[in-house]
Amino acid sequence: MAVKVVIIGGGSSYTPEIIEGFIQRQATFPVREIVLVDIEEGRDKLDIVGRLAERMIQKAGADISLRWTLNRKEALHGADFVSTQIRVGGLAARALDERIPLKHGFIGQETNGAGGLFKAFRTIPVLIELANEMAEICPDAWLVNFTNPAGIVTEAVLKHSAHNKVIGVCNIPFNMRNSVAEILQTPVERVGIEFIGLNHFVFGRHVWVDGIDRTDDVLAALNDGTDYSPANIVGLGWSESFLKSLRMLPNPYHQYYFQTKDVLKKDLAAYEQNGTRAEVVQQVEAQLFEKYKDIELDVKPEELEQRGGAYYSDAACNLMDSIYNDRGDIQTVNTLNRGTIRDLPDDAVIEVNAVITKSGPRPIAIGSLPLPIKGLITNLKTFEQLAIQAAISGSYHDAYLACLMNPLIQDEKKIDSLLRELFDAHEAYLPQFKKEVYS
Amino acid sequence: MAVKVVIIGGGSSYTPEIIEGFIQRQATFPVREIVLVDIEEGRDKLDIVGRLAERMIQKAGADISLRWTLNRKEALHGADFVSTQIRVGGLAARALDERIPLKHGFIGQETNGAGGLFKAFRTIPVLIELANEMAEICPDAWLVNFTNPAGIVTEAVLKHSAHNKVIGVCNIPFNMRNSVAEILQTPVERVGIEFIGLNHFVFGRHVWVDGIDRTDDVLAALNDGTDYSPANIVGLGWSESFLKSLRMLPNPYHQYYFQTKDVLKKDLAAYEQNGTRAEVVQQVEAQLFEKYKDIELDVKPEELEQRGGAYYSDAACNLMDSIYNDRGDIQTVNTLNRGTIRDLPDDAVIEVNAVITKSGPRPIAIGSLPLPIKGLITNLKTFEQLAIQAAISGSYHDAYLACLMNPLIQDEKKIDSLLRELFDAHEAYLPQFKKEVYS
Amino acid sequence: MAVKVVIIGGGSSYTPEIIEGFIQRQATFPVREIVLVDIEEGRDKLDIVGRLAERMIQKAGADISLRWTLNRKEALHGADFVSTQIRVGGLAARALDERIPLKHGFIGQETNGAGGLFKAFRTIPVLIELANEMAEICPDAWLVNFTNPAGIVTEAVLKHSAHNKVIGVCNIPFNMRNSVAEILQTPVERVGIEFIGLNHFVFGRHVWVDGIDRTDDVLAALNDGTDYSPANIVGLGWSESFLKSLRMLPNPYHQYYFQTKDVLKKDLAAYEQNGTRAEVVQQVEAQLFEKYKDIELDVKPEELEQRGGAYYSDAACNLMDSIYNDRGDIQTVNTLNRGTIRDLPDDAVIEVNAVITKSGPRPIAIGSLPLPIKGLITNLKTFEQLAIQAAISGSYHDAYLACLMNPLIQDEKKIDSLLRELFDAHEAYLPQFKKEVYS
Amino acid sequence: MAVKVVIIGGGSSYTPEIIEGFIQRQATFPVREIVLVDIEEGRDKLDIVGRLAERMIQKAGADISLRWTLNRKEALHGADFVSTQIRVGGLAARALDERIPLKHGFIGQETNGAGGLFKAFRTIPVLIELANEMAEICPDAWLVNFTNPAGIVTEAVLKHSAHNKVIGVCNIPFNMRNSVAEILQTPVERVGIEFIGLNHFVFGRHVWVDGIDRTDDVLAALNDGTDYSPANIVGLGWSESFLKSLRMLPNPYHQYYFQTKDVLKKDLAAYEQNGTRAEVVQQVEAQLFEKYKDIELDVKPEELEQRGGAYYSDAACNLMDSIYNDRGDIQTVNTLNRGTIRDLPDDAVIEVNAVITKSGPRPIAIGSLPLPIKGLITNLKTFEQLAIQAAISGSYHDAYLACLMNPLIQDEKKIDSLLRELFDAHEAYLPQFKKEVYS
Repeated sequence: MAVKVVIIGGGSSYTPEIIEGFIQRQATFPVREIVLVDIEEGRDKLDIVGRLAERMIQKAGADISLRWTLNRKEALHGADFVSTQIRVGGLAARALDERIPLKHGFIGQETNGAGGLFKAFRTIPVLIELANEMAEICPDAWLVNFTNPAGIVTEAVLKHSAHNKVIGVCNIPFNMRNSVAEILQTPVERVGIEFIGLNHFVFGRHVWVDGIDRTDDVLAALNDGTDYSPANIVGLGWSESFLKSLRMLPNPYHQYYFQTKDVLKKDLAAYEQNGTRAEVVQQVEAQLFEKYKDIELDVKPEELEQRGGAYYSDAACNLMDSIYNDRGDIQTVNTLNRGTIRDLPDDAVIEVNAVITKSGPRPIAIGSLPLPIKGLITNLKTFEQLAIQAAISGSYHDAYLACLMNPLIQDEKKIDSLLRELFDAHEAYLPQFKKEVYS
Repeated sequence: MAVKVVIIGGGSSYTPEIIEGFIQRQATFPVREIVLVDIEEGRDKLDIVGRLAERMIQKAGADISLRWTLNRKEALHGADFVSTQIRVGGLAARALDERIPLKHGFIGQETNGAGGLFKAFRTIPVLIELANEMAEICPDAWLVNFTNPAGIVTEAVLKHSAHNKVIGVCNIPFNMRNSVAEILQTPVERVGIEFIGLNHFVFGRHVWVDGIDRTDDVLAALNDGTDYSPANIVGLGWSESFLKSLRMLPNPYHQYYFQTKDVLKKDLAAYEQNGTRAEVVQQVEAQLFEKYKDIELDVKPEELEQRGGAYYSDAACNLMDSIYNDRGDIQTVNTLNRGTIRDLPDDAVIEVNAVITKSGPRPIAIGSLPLPIKGLITNLKTFEQLAIQAAISGSYHDAYLACLMNPLIQDEKKIDSLLRELFDAHEAYLPQFKKEVYS
Repeated sequence: MAVKVVIIGGGSSYTPEIIEGFIQRQATFPVREIVLVDIEEGRDKLDIVGRLAERMIQKAGADISLRWTLNRKEALHGADFVSTQIRVGGLAARALDERIPLKHGFIGQETNGAGGLFKAFRTIPVLIELANEMAEICPDAWLVNFTNPAGIVTEAVLKHSAHNKVIGVCNIPFNMRNSVAEILQTPVERVGIEFIGLNHFVFGRHVWVDGIDRTDDVLAALNDGTDYSPANIVGLGWSESFLKSLRMLPNPYHQYYFQTKDVLKKDLAAYEQNGTRAEVVQQVEAQLFEKYKDIELDVKPEELEQRGGAYYSDAACNLMDSIYNDRGDIQTVNTLNRGTIRDLPDDAVIEVNAVITKSGPRPIAIGSLPLPIKGLITNLKTFEQLAIQAAISGSYHDAYLACLMNPLIQDEKKIDSLLRELFDAHEAYLPQFKKEVYS
Repeated sequence: MAVKVVIIGGGSSYTPEIIEGFIQRQATFPVREIVLVDIEEGRDKLDIVGRLAERMIQKAGADISLRWTLNRKEALHGADFVSTQIRVGGLAARALDERIPLKHGFIGQETNGAGGLFKAFRTIPVLIELANEMAEICPDAWLVNFTNPAGIVTEAVLKHSAHNKVIGVCNIPFNMRNSVAEILQTPVERVGIEFIGLNHFVFGRHVWVDGIDRTDDVLAALNDGTDYSPANIVGLGWSESFLKSLRMLPNPYHQYYFQTKDVLKKDLAAYEQNGTRAEVVQQVEAQLFEKYKDIELDVKPEELEQRGGAYYSDAACNLMDSIYNDRGDIQTVNTLNRGTIRDLPDDAVIEVNAVITKSGPRPIAIGSLPLPIKGLITNLKTFEQLAIQAAISGSYHDAYLACLMNPLIQDEKKIDSLLRELFDAHEAYLPQFKKEVYS
C-alpha cells in the first residue's frame, strides 16, 4: 500500500518542510513516491528545491522516490494525495494586493479585505482546473489545499469543480493549539480546542486539557499579555473587556476586524518603513533559496521556521496520515458545512473540528453559533459567497457587491477606484474578468 | 363601536399630526375618545398641546372627547389603541447620544450606532412597564409603537413583557413609497414596494405600479440624483455602481453603513457649525411650542412638517384604521418574524409588508434574504439581540458585546471609554445598569 | 388589453363551467379569445363541448371569440392564461388507479395513495412538456393547473420545466370556505380561513368573520354532524376528541389518513356494489355529453354541479381575474414554499393563502407548523418529493421508496406486486419507466 | 480518582451483567463503590441480586465496595455515574401495554405504539424526579439512562428537569455493530456504522471496515436471509426491493412500521399461544432469580444472555469508561440534537454517533436527513414531542394527539376507547392524568 503524493507548487520555499514531514512519518505513513510540480516561471526554483529534497531523502535513508516536473497532468497519474502550495502571480502579485488597498485607505492584507479578494480571484480558476484534472486522472485522490484564502478557495473548488475529495488546511488552529499548550505548560496532545467559524475568522470556544475546561486560564494568560500570533502577524494584544465579554479565544487575524483603524495605522507605518510584507518576504525567500543551493545542505534549514508557515507541514502530514490510516482522531479542517453550523448554508465551507477517517473528515456538530459571533460570521460567509460568485462569473457587479459586503471595505463610493486599480494591476491573472467591464 | 385611543408622550410636538389624522378619518375610523398622557417633567408641554388639540377638534366639529393626564394607568382603562411617542430623557439625552460618540471618533446618531444603543437602553424598560400595565388593564388593546429604535424596542417588548399585541411603526417606508410615487409621477395608492429587512435597515427589493415592476426606473432616477431622504437626514447620493450592483432601493439610514467615513466627516462639520441635530431640533421645538400657545391656532401648523416626522400620523392612523376595519390591505410594519425571513430567528422583529387584519398583521413571506444583503442584515439583527439582552440584564459585558458587533463601533480597544462616558451621562435613566459595573 | 385564454383538455365535461365563469366576469376581466385544446382521442368530445360553449357565448351576447383545435403549440401563441383540466389515460386509467390498490388491500383513490402516485406518474411528463412549450411560445402567460394531484404536479413542473409562472388550484379550500359561510350563516366574502399544508392535506387553522375568530363555532358545528364534503367524497364524520384535540378544520381527504381502515371497508363495499368511483363518473359523463349535444342547450346544465367539481370555475376565474387586475386579494393556491412554512424545503409546493398580484401569488408567512400536524405534513411532502423524483427518473427504486413512505401503503413486502400490476396496467402512459425495471 | 456508581433499579435481573462489566474494566475504569437502589416493592429481588453481586465481586477479587438500599437520596451522595434500569409498574404493567392495544386492533409493544406511549407516561415523572435529585445532590454526575423508551425519556428529562448531564443508551446499535462484524467476519473494533435517527428508529447509513465502505456487502447478506434481530424481537426478514431501494441498514424495530399488518398478525398468533412477551419474560425472570439465589453461584449465569439485553452492560460500561478517561472514541448515544440533524429541533434527542469526552458526547454532524427517511423520522419525532407534552401536562387532548400522530395508531375513531382502557389499567402510575379527564 505505497502512497504517492503530488505537490503542486513544488518549487515553493516551504517544500523542505513537507519533505521533512514525510521522512519523519515513514514508519506509519508509507509515502514512496513524491512528485514536485510547478509552472514554467518557477522552473529554476523547482530545480533548486528538488535537489535539496533529494539530498534530504538520501541523508535520511528514506525509501522515497522523488522527481520534479512541469507536466502536471502526467504527474497526477496514480496519486493518492495532491497538496497545493501555489501563489498565482507570485510575491509580486501579493505586493500589489497589499499596496493598492493601503493607497485607497483600506487594509491591504494577503487573505483579508480587498487583497484576499483578488488572491481568491486569481487562485480559484487555477485550482478548479487542477481539481477537474484530478476528477479525470486520479478520482480517488484527496486534494489537500493550503492555498489561501483557504476557506474561500476550498468552497469554490467544491462548488464548481467535478472533484469532491477536497480539504482545506490552515496552520492557524494548529498554531493556536501549540501556543495554548505552551501557555498551560501541557503536552500539546492533551490539549483540545473547539474551533468554530471560518478560515482566518475562527474562534476557540473551549479549551480542554484531558477533558477539563481550561478556557478561562488561557484567556487570563492572554489578558496578561501572552501572545500567540504567528511570525507573519504582529499582534496588538486584546483588551480585558474584549476577552472577558467574548469568552472565546480570538485568532490573530481578528485584529483586522476588531482593531481596524489601529491595524491600518500600524500597517501604513510599517509600509513606509519596510514596504509591504510581500517585499519583506521576497528578501527572506531570496536568502532561503541561496541557502537551498548549497549542496552541503541536506536537512531543512532553521531559517525556514521564521518564514511564517510554522506547522504547515505538520498540519498537512498529520491530515494525510490520518486519512490513510483511518485514524479517527480530531483535526481542524476546512470542509463542507452540511448542517454542522445551523446558521450557515449546507454548501458553505467552514473551519471546524472533524473526525478524520479514510472516507474523509466528519465534522463535529456545532449547532447554532453563539449569539455574539453569529452576525459577523454570517456576514463574512456572505462576503465569501459573493467573492466566489464574482470569481466564477467575472461580473464587475458581483465583485462590487463582494467589496460592499466586506467589513474592511464597505465604503460604496470608494469601491470603484479601488477595484479598477486592482483589476488593472492583476489583469494577466484574471482572464474571467473582461477588461471592458471595469475600465 | 366607538374607539378610544391613548397617546403616551401626548405632550410631544408631533401630537397635532395624529390629532389631524383622527379628525380626517372620522367617517371610517370612529375615534370618540383620546387621552394624552405624559410625565411630570412634560406637564407644561402636555398642557399646551392638549389645548391646541382641543381647538383643532372643535374647529373640525369632530365628535371626539379629548383629555390629558399624568396618570397613565387610569388612562389605559378601556383603551382600544395605545400609541407611543416618548423620548426618555428628552432632547437633552439625544444630544448626548449624538455628541459623545462623535467625540470618540464614532458616528453619533439617534437610532444607529452607540447613540441608538443608549436610546434603546433608556426606552426598553419604560415600554416594557407600559406593556405590562396594558396586559393587565386593557389586554385587548394594540400598542402601536413609534418610539425609536422602533425595531429593537418592539422586539424587546414582545420578548420581555406580558403583552403581545404590539406593532412597531416607522415613517421611512411610508416616505419611500411617497417619494417613489413622486419619482414615477403616479398616485401613491398604485405604488407597491416590497420592503425587506430591519427598521432603519430596510431595502425596497421591488417597486410595482399596478403590479408592473418599475424598480429599474426608480433606481435610474436615484442615479440621476433624485433624492428621497426625509428632512432629518441629509443624503449624500449613491454611486451608480452601488445602485446597479445592489438593484434594490436603499433607505436614507444606509448611508451610516455604506458611507461611514464621509458621514462621520459631514456630521463632525455640521456639529462644529450648528451643534448636534438634537440641538437644532430643540430650537425648532421651542418655536413650535410658541406657535402652539397661540389660541388663534386651531389647525396643525405648517412648520410641523419640517420637523422630520412627515407621514408619522398617516402611518399610525392608517394602521389603526385597518386593524379596526379588518381591511386586509398591505402596510409595512415591525412585527415578529415567525418564519417570514428564513435567515432570522422566529422571535426577531423585522420590518416587512403585512396584510393588516383585525387580529393583527400577517407578514408576506420573504424566504431567504437575497445573498448580497443577507450577511449585513443578520449582523445587525445580532447587534439588536445583544442590545436587548444588555438592556434587560444590565450587564456591562453584554453592552460591550453589543458595541463590538455593531458595524459602526466594533473597535475593541475604544469601546470601554465610549461606554463609560455614555453610562455616566445617562445614569439617571439606566437603573438596570449598576454604577459599579462600568466605573 | 384583451385577454386570451387557452384551455388544455378543453373537451372536458367541466368546460361549460369555466366558460360561464368568463361570461359572468366580462365587465372586469375582458377575456376576448378562448381556445379549447385537446388530443386526438378527445376529438369528438371537444367538438361537442366546443359547440355548446359557442352557444353559451352567443346566448350571453359576450364579446368572446372561441375556437377549438388539436394543435396545442399553435393555440399557445399570444396566450395570457393557460388552464389545464386534462386526465392522462381518461377515466379508464382512473378506474385502474382505484381498482388495483383495492385488490392489494390498499386504498384506491384518484389523488391519494398508490392511485394518486400513478396519476402523478402519467401527468407530470405531459405537463412539463406543455410548460416547456409555454416557456418558448408564450413566456409571459400563467399556467393555472387544475390537474390532480395538483400539488405534486405543480411542484414537478416548477422544478423540472423551463416555465415558472405556474400556479396550482384546487376547489377544496374554496368549498370549505363556502361551507363554513353556510355553517355560520354569513356571506362568504366576510369569511376568512387560514389554510396551511399541502394540497388535499390542508388544514384550516383559523376561521375569521370580519376578523373575529370563529374557529370554535365551526368545530362545534362539525361535531354536531354538519358535513362539508364535496359530492365526490362521502364523509364519515369526525369524533369529538379529534376536533377538540386538533382544534383545526380537517378537509374531506383527511379521512384517508385518519380513518384508513373504515374508509377501506367503505370503499370495498361501494366497489362491490357500484364499481369504482371512476365507473360511476363515466356514466355521469356519458349522460352529460348526451345533454351537451342538445343544440337547444345554451347554458351550463344543472347536472354538471353534481359532477363533483363545484366551484372549480370560480376558483380558476377569480384567480385569473385577480392576476389580471392586480387585485391584491387573498386566495388559496398551490405555490412555491420559499420559506412560507419553515419546516418544508424552499422548492416545495404548498397550499396556502396568498396575496394575488399581477406578478403572481405572494404567500402569507406561516412559520413553523403547529406541532400536532408537523410530522404528518413533512412526511407527506417527503412522499411527494419521492413521487416527483420517480416520475422524472423512471427508477423503480424511487417508485418503491415513494410507496414505502406513503402512509397509505408503507407495507414493504406488498409493494412489489402492487407496483408491478400498476406499471403493467398503465404501461402506455409511462414511457419514462422502462418495462425491464419492473417486470 | 475512585469512581462511584449508583444503579437505580438495582434489583433488576440485568444487574449481574453490569457488575461483570465493572469487574472486567477494573484496570482502566476504577469503579470502587457501587450502590444498588430499588423501591420497597423490589426489596426481595434487590436482596437476591445484591448478594449475587457481592459473591461475583469477591470471586473476582475486585476492589469494589458494594451495598444496596431503598434510600435513593442518600445513595446519590458523591456519585460519579447514575445508571437507570427501572420498569415502573414492573412486568405486569408491560403485559397491559402489550395486551390492551392488541385487543383494540393495534400493535402492542413495549416501546412502540400505544404501549411505548404509556411506558413513557409512567416513566417520565419518575426519572425527572431522579434527575432533579441529582441536580441537587450530585450535580456533576452523569445520568446514564437505559430505561425505555430511551429516546423519549431522555428528551423529557433534558427538557423538564434541572439536570443536563443525561445520556440515553440503547443496545440496538451495539447489537447491530456486532452482528455486522459477524456478517463481515471482522473484529468488531474495525467496524464503524453511521447511525442516524431516533432510538428504535435508527438506520445504519454506512458500514465501514477500516474506513472502507462495506454497506452493500451487509445489505446483500441481509437479503440472503441473514438476520440480526435481538432475542426479544423475531424478525420477518426484508424484501430485496426494500433493501436495494433504501440502501441503509434497518433496525429490528422497523418491522413495526414497514410490516405493520404482518407483525400484528404474528403478534396476535403468538399472544394466543404464549400470552404477551411480558408474560414470557416473567417466567424467564422467575427462573433467573431462582438461579441467583444459589449461594454457589458467583459469576453471571449464562441464561441471562437469553434474556434479551445482550450487550447492555458493554454499552453502559464502555460509555462510562470513555467519559471517565476522556477517550474521544465514537459511540452511539441518545443526546440533544443541537443542529446535528438539520430537519429536527435543537432540543430533540436523537440517536447518533458521538465522540465521547469527559465533558460529554459531541455528536458528529449529519446534516439533512436522506430524503427517503426524512418524513418518517420527522413524523416519529413529532409523536415523541407530543408524548412528552402529554406526559408533563396530563392533558387528555395531548395524549389523544400523540396517538393520532403515531403511525401505529392514527385511527381517530378508535383512540378514545384505547386510551380509556390504558388509562384505567395504569391509573396507579399516572398521577399526572386526573381520572376525570379520561373517564
